Amino acid sequence: MANQTGNFGYDRDLSGLFDVIVGLCKDYMLQYEDRDSKVIEFRSPSEISSLVDMSLPEEPVDEDRIVEQVKSVLKYSVHTNHPYCNNQLWSSGVDQVGLLGQFLTSTVHTLMYTFEMAPVFTVMEATILQRLRQMIGWSGGEGDGIFTPGGSIANLYGLMAARYHKYPETKEKGIQHLPRLVIFGSEQCHYSNQKSAIIMGIGTEAVIKVKCDPFGKMDPVDLDKQIEEAKTKGYAPFAVVATSGSTVIGAFDPIGPIADVCDKHNLWLHIDAAYGGGVLFSDNYRHLMANAHRSDSITWDLHKSATVPQQCSAILLKHKGLLAMCNSTKASYLFQRDKQNYDVSFDTGDKSIQCGRLNDVLKLWIMWKAKGKNGFAKQMDNSIGLAKYLAKRVKERDDFELILEPEYTNVCFWYIAPSVRGITDQNERKQKLNGIAPKIKARLMAAGTLMLGYQPLGEYPNFFRMVTTCPQGKEADMDFLLNEIKRLGKDL
Amino acid sequence: MANQTGNFGYDRDLSGLFDVIVGLCKDYMLQYEDRDSKVIEFRSPSEISSLVDMSLPEEPVDEDRIVEQVKSVLKYSVHTNHPYCNNQLWSSGVDQVGLLGQFLTSTVHTLMYTFEMAPVFTVMEATILQRLRQMIGWSGGEGDGIFTPGGSIANLYGLMAARYHKYPETKEKGIQHLPRLVIFGSEQCHYSNQKSAIIMGIGTEAVIKVKCDPFGKMDPVDLDKQIEEAKTKGYAPFAVVATSGSTVIGAFDPIGPIADVCDKHNLWLHIDAAYGGGVLFSDNYRHLMANAHRSDSITWDLHKSATVPQQCSAILLKHKGLLAMCNSTKASYLFQRDKQNYDVSFDTGDKSIQCGRLNDVLKLWIMWKAKGKNGFAKQMDNSIGLAKYLAKRVKERDDFELILEPEYTNVCFWYIAPSVRGITDQNERKQKLNGIAPKIKARLMAAGTLMLGYQPLGEYPNFFRMVTTCPQGKEADMDFLLNEIKRLGKDL
Repeated sequence: MANQTGNFGYDRDLSGLFDVIVGLCKDYMLQYEDRDSKVIEFRSPSEISSLVDMSLPEEPVDEDRIVEQVKSVLKYSVHTNHPYCNNQLWSSGVDQVGLLGQFLTSTVHTLMYTFEMAPVFTVMEATILQRLRQMIGWSGGEGDGIFTPGGSIANLYGLMAARYHKYPETKEKGIQHLPRLVIFGSEQCHYSNQKSAIIMGIGTEAVIKVKCDPFGKMDPVDLDKQIEEAKTKGYAPFAVVATSGSTVIGAFDPIGPIADVCDKHNLWLHIDAAYGGGVLFSDNYRHLMANAHRSDSITWDLHKSATVPQQCSAILLKHKGLLAMCNSTKASYLFQRDKQNYDVSFDTGDKSIQCGRLNDVLKLWIMWKAKGKNGFAKQMDNSIGLAKYLAKRVKERDDFELILEPEYTNVCFWYIAPSVRGITDQNERKQKLNGIAPKIKARLMAAGTLMLGYQPLGEYPNFFRMVTTCPQGKEADMDFLLNEIKRLGKDL
Repeated sequence: MANQTGNFGYDRDLSGLFDVIVGLCKDYMLQYEDRDSKVIEFRSPSEISSLVDMSLPEEPVDEDRIVEQVKSVLKYSVHTNHPYCNNQLWSSGVDQVGLLGQFLTSTVHTLMYTFEMAPVFTVMEATILQRLRQMIGWSGGEGDGIFTPGGSIANLYGLMAARYHKYPETKEKGIQHLPRLVIFGSEQCHYSNQKSAIIMGIGTEAVIKVKCDPFGKMDPVDLDKQIEEAKTKGYAPFAVVATSGSTVIGAFDPIGPIADVCDKHNLWLHIDAAYGGGVLFSDNYRHLMANAHRSDSITWDLHKSATVPQQCSAILLKHKGLLAMCNSTKASYLFQRDKQNYDVSFDTGDKSIQCGRLNDVLKLWIMWKAKGKNGFAKQMDNSIGLAKYLAKRVKERDDFELILEPEYTNVCFWYIAPSVRGITDQNERKQKLNGIAPKIKARLMAAGTLMLGYQPLGEYPNFFRMVTTCPQGKEADMDFLLNEIKRLGKDL
């Protein structure tokens, strides 16, 4: 960092920081090998404020002080590269080649609006999106698609495309002249569908909830009934959202029967496969998304089951050119039509609801090179295998109770603490059980040994949800999980 | 990367890649010092497809091959760290401390929904957002805010908050029962306002365009007139968007007079300061956003004029708690209310329209430590100084023509090619001038020496827009720019 006018606003040479910070990154990354290390050194918000210097100074602070503070940042952050960080659908294990892809992405530092600004990544993105569409089963991989900032926004794209497809005039005229617009999703579909409804101006009440069977799968008969009822009320249905890999249970809605209902009512079928899309890599589990090609649009987060670093979320459509029709505004300062050096139809920016859009494809590309499609398949098979193993262990132990057999990578179960055993009154038992998971969760956080989610669902009181997508996960880790919960909960 | 079951889906040890790839990143980053290097090795889409191996293999490819391909990726990508990459508002010069912040962010690899998953970054974000609000002038920095995936989405947040504030029932019931909703922005406001209108279901026709004065600033008298007319038609106005730093000209709308009109009509004032917000760092230029505190919400992209790595875009609101009221859906699997280890009011996730949201604050924090607020101020002063210098040089030379005096970091000008000189018929001259910029642009891309945007605007035929936000920019770079344009255009 040479000393010159306009030296990035810095008053001194900071080039020494590069190797120091990268060294810290490397050490941090490699901690994943140490299962005895803590997942988190949990501190309260006020403690964090004093442990990490949050002040925003007028003048620069010196280099050593910065490095010292960075160490505090790392120390008190959640170690998502730890095999026991199972808090979220994506959170255990940072793919190390993917991480290098992210470093490269940050270094190249461009945005995706035009081929001109992102020549390599524009072609790369088109290639990978086509491959994903092929895996879905759309002929020749034809269609449309774009990477988005997460599955919620991808779902928003899908619903916007559905609305535009049925009512193209809404792009200019809005929806206020139309009859009440409604969409349908299962009672266990992701909350982003409600958020999309808020954003799109149809409101949460426009998301009509369809019943699930005991396995968390949408009931197509109830779907048909709900659509009929909505029509009777004069509502205007425009989309059905099926879920492939529900958030809590990991359930896959039956796409074929749902597509039949959509065909009957001429409705757009969007599949939220944010979580479940990864099964398409695996010959053994692709059947969970059988008939995916019958949908109109699919959300697929590669940062979930394919463990690409955050974020790598695709919206994929069967309909070629639809995103641009739906979202373009033809800004002349950015998407010049009279450019002479290349065919501007390669520009992807006007398909997007963002202006600047990050390059989310390079990290996926480099991972694909390094592990091949078969590597992703092996990962998926390993994850589902671990879920089945954990479910078996839960059933074998009398201090745990399985809620239902996993068909994917979520295992939902209760720890039956001593105080719960022997309670015969079902309401009393439920109430008691409901209090167990939050208590153990707090103890797990304090111990820092394991991070795990819990939640209630319908009639089920609070239960643990283990997500087995950890790319370095082993069977012994599943046993550790159960033992650790028992260790911290056996006095409850 | 130890050999174990579930080894990230890799079939071999790839740990050697870390140092190699990081080395490539470092070399690439340091190229910024070499002004003689190319900004881009431009190749067509089909050439890119053969120069970079886009194939997505079934089986892994070997390490050397990956490294070789990564080198091709770097070679044919745009060098946004080059001082002559002036194509976009943000694109010249990658801040090197910010880049390290991004490496750390990728390494820690978490998302921002809950304090539990992002303890340090949740507190850091709250602290920085408060400081930004203080700089806006909201008492004590009170209010609301969140980082978003870019200015377009931040603007969407602002407009959604405006809609909710006026019509809170729309969250559940949607907008279809309301009179025609409309918003107002200048005829030079960013296209994201139209995209927001599409998304929100009010359509592009709901964005009523207000006239600009010759300096590209919204005319408050016309604003008042347009609002009156809309009301007469029975429309329901709910927001006015003022622009601080327009995309092409870099103009700042007069916030005070616009706020007066908003007060008169009881309308939400959103300021799109995505580009211009950086003036708030500088004592010399803060006046461009005088009365910013009179707004209800402000979009501020720190990745633009503060040159934080992409993306770092804040939506800031005067109204405390409004984002959660507007956007929350209270998903129980993620935002458990019965958590016992911390006060869940620290969780930011349900304020967001995303589910997973990237950590965009660490890179800003580390830059703030390393340069201080005064470093950002110096950068801003240097950038605006360069714009004024360039404008002076344009005026001094008879082969260039300035469109208007810059008050910010955009300099808009024509190159008056030999064939244009002496044409007295204004229409003929315009038509001729309109063809010059695209031709020179194509030649600049082919030469790879300089990247620069061009566009028409209103009555002005195609002109160049130089953006002087390069953090290592010098006056000599401005002279290079003009000379290079002339070198490539002097036969036109």
